[in-house]
Amino acid sequence: MTQLTRQDCERMDVNDPLASFRQEFDLPDNTVYLNGNSLGAMPKKALAQAQQTVINEWGKDLIKSWNVHDWFSMPQRLGDRLAPLIGAAEGEVVVTDSTGINLFKVLSAALTLQQKHQPERKKIVMEGSNFPTDNYTAQGLLELLGNQHEIVFAEDEAIVDAIDENVAVVCLTQVHYKSGRVLDMKAITEKTHACGALSIWDLCHSAGAMPVNLNGCQVDFAIGCTYKYLNGGPGSPAFIFTAKRHQGKALQPLTGWWGHAAPFAFDRDYTPAIDIRQMLSGTQPIVSLAMTEVGLDISVRADLAAVREKSQRLGDLFIRLLAERCADHCFQIVSPEDAERRGSQVAIAHDQGYAIMQALIARSVIGDFRAPDIMRFGFSALYVSYADVFDTVEALRDIMDNQIWQREEYNRRHAVT
Amino acid sequence: MTQLTRQDCERMDVNDPLASFRQEFDLPDNTVYLNGNSLGAMPKKALAQAQQTVINEWGKDLIKSWNVHDWFSMPQRLGDRLAPLIGAAEGEVVVTDSTGINLFKVLSAALTLQQKHQPERKKIVMEGSNFPTDNYTAQGLLELLGNQHEIVFAEDEAIVDAIDENVAVVCLTQVHYKSGRVLDMKAITEKTHACGALSIWDLCHSAGAMPVNLNGCQVDFAIGCTYKYLNGGPGSPAFIFTAKRHQGKALQPLTGWWGHAAPFAFDRDYTPAIDIRQMLSGTQPIVSLAMTEVGLDISVRADLAAVREKSQRLGDLFIRLLAERCADHCFQIVSPEDAERRGSQVAIAHDQGYAIMQALIARSVIGDFRAPDIMRFGFSALYVSYADVFDTVEALRDIMDNQIWQREEYNRRHAVT
Repeated sequence: MTQLTRQDCERMDVNDPLASFRQEFDLPDNTVYLNGNSLGAMPKKALAQAQQTVINEWGKDLIKSWNVHDWFSMPQRLGDRLAPLIGAAEGEVVVTDSTGINLFKVLSAALTLQQKHQPERKKIVMEGSNFPTDNYTAQGLLELLGNQHEIVFAEDEAIVDAIDENVAVVCLTQVHYKSGRVLDMKAITEKTHACGALSIWDLCHSAGAMPVNLNGCQVDFAIGCTYKYLNGGPGSPAFIFTAKRHQGKALQPLTGWWGHAAPFAFDRDYTPAIDIRQMLSGTQPIVSLAMTEVGLDISVRADLAAVREKSQRLGDLFIRLLAERCADHCFQIVSPEDAERRGSQVAIAHDQGYAIMQALIARSVIGDFRAPDIMRFGFSALYVSYADVFDTVEALRDIMDNQIWQREEYNRRHAVT
Repeated sequence: MTQLTRQDCERMDVNDPLASFRQEFDLPDNTVYLNGNSLGAMPKKALAQAQQTVINEWGKDLIKSWNVHDWFSMPQRLGDRLAPLIGAAEGEVVVTDSTGINLFKVLSAALTLQQKHQPERKKIVMEGSNFPTDNYTAQGLLELLGNQHEIVFAEDEAIVDAIDENVAVVCLTQVHYKSGRVLDMKAITEKTHACGALSIWDLCHSAGAMPVNLNGCQVDFAIGCTYKYLNGGPGSPAFIFTAKRHQGKALQPLTGWWGHAAPFAFDRDYTPAIDIRQMLSGTQPIVSLAMTEVGLDISVRADLAAVREKSQRLGDLFIRLLAERCADHCFQIVSPEDAERRGSQVAIAHDQGYAIMQALIARSVIGDFRAPDIMRFGFSALYVSYADVFDTVEALRDIMDNQIWQREEYNRRHAVT
């Protein structure tokens, strides 16, 4: 097999059915942005949306905007737009609050439901190596509840075996934040239900990156963020999915007025909404929320199967080019090499990973580093090209061949700070 | 006493030491905006701030912005700016999440602290007529905790008497959302502490409207919003105050990674930060958060004593003009007539309040209506003038004298919708 050239990669770009989406994003010149798995790129229409919300809505229509510009129902409206991207139906999703707070809501709701029907179940299955906010949030909730429950931490293949008749809730992230490994949502949820437990899926690294089929997998609850592959802007509000069958029954405890059955009746006592609105708490950050719509508008126009296929090809290309051009440099592929088992990123390990990533960033190839030795490269199919992947590996090769990372390391150690 | 004229009011404006602040806000032409008690007006610099955050930070510096533009520490930085406005010290305030969610945090923290030291205390004193989200949130928390506690609802003067040795927490809003009545924070907190209870104050209708002295009153916890008198924009994130003496001891249960002692260590298990950061949960909506700073920048330059004095004068003027010019029209003053006992708004009642408010809004005098019969007029001292108050009462007089509200009512009933 002959080595791939940049021309080969450019040809792949010419044949890329998603290529036109790149024009909808504003990225700095001469930058390869491979961190969409952490913060998605800025859509060109983001600023216009901010201006509209700030000047025309807040500034001109002031308080009337809550009705005139539909601010009050934005969580539901955006949730309905997001729903098809994750295999949910209308009325099953709201965009609101942060991922961790939303996890607190659905985990409380699930545990309360189990407490009512199967109070003897006291175990929650989670993955210890998950992005830690999920584990922290569960730990905070369990402590508040008097530590009657226990978290069973399992990893990867061992997760399925950890699910048994003592388990109340299985709470997992579909795509691992560090390795990019994809869990089998369908099989795990089936086992979960077969054991009588409820499932919660965190979609932070899958929503917008691949087709997700929540209802097809009979998932009970899900959460996720909108600022990675959905390009909603820094810290844009997260989402919650509650399957229709649980609405009005599985109630969350952050019972602000937006989740009341009649929020404008101003009753003294809380009466829960019987639909997805019960997952809401209070007043939302409208400017950030409105900007989320711009990213969603792009994703709903993209064919998610094509997005998935391209991101797999980008990842495969990265792995192949690394083998072809950096074989001597001891990079270890941490992500699954089988694209079916890998999300939209490739993680590689190297002892000098930190300094190497600094050297990459210094030449505008933006990935990130996770201690102790992992470099992450996210391949957001909507704006990363095959040529970008070639340039990334070429930059890596140059940095390694010419030991430029050592200079970066030297500069860092001797920096006047 | 001769009747006041518009010229008299214009003279008051000429002598107003805060008059120049009006230039910092962009309000629609020919509009009298008296709803800053619900959504503050837009500072002229708001759009530039949004542009900076969207284009220069998100768009250009992308993921690096978390460090380069200090996104990660914004909740503390903004909290420190806000602190002097509410009588708090550096390191006692963060700006984050929503008011209701923040109340959930501090009420959980306070109850957990009491549970440890005085577990026999099971009562929480609240005001039943408070803006309901506070009561709803407390009810949601207590239900999650298995209904071991009881909320004692008391009103107004009766609140102090409801505080006794069985009370764990007293949780009140300083300025009533509907009537504008001010509670005596110092006296009530003293009684609270004398009885061995902890105090939580909701400052939604006082922060930015009047000097608040949390530490002077020895308050334990406080929360509040930034989108009313602090002009942070629609749904801009709320704040939390935790007195230094409780930090590291009173822990909140929404334990996301931002509240971890070492958030970037990515430990599996939660270790609480021992300072105000423990009150944080997860990733914040950065664009909305950054815009909050613009409003804060204005308020910190204003003399809060002067803001308070002017808002009292505006309210007194409104009440006097109403007596002078609308005496025949059966408006009942709902707010305390004594300005010392009244926040920054005046509420009046009328059987036809809804239609009258619609008629006012139709001529660009923007107040709001609260069922069954209350019209609220908020006097934000930074942008409302004495002449505005005159014009408001004159519009009211015209609407009443010429029964224009009946036409509004007619139009409403026959509107094609």
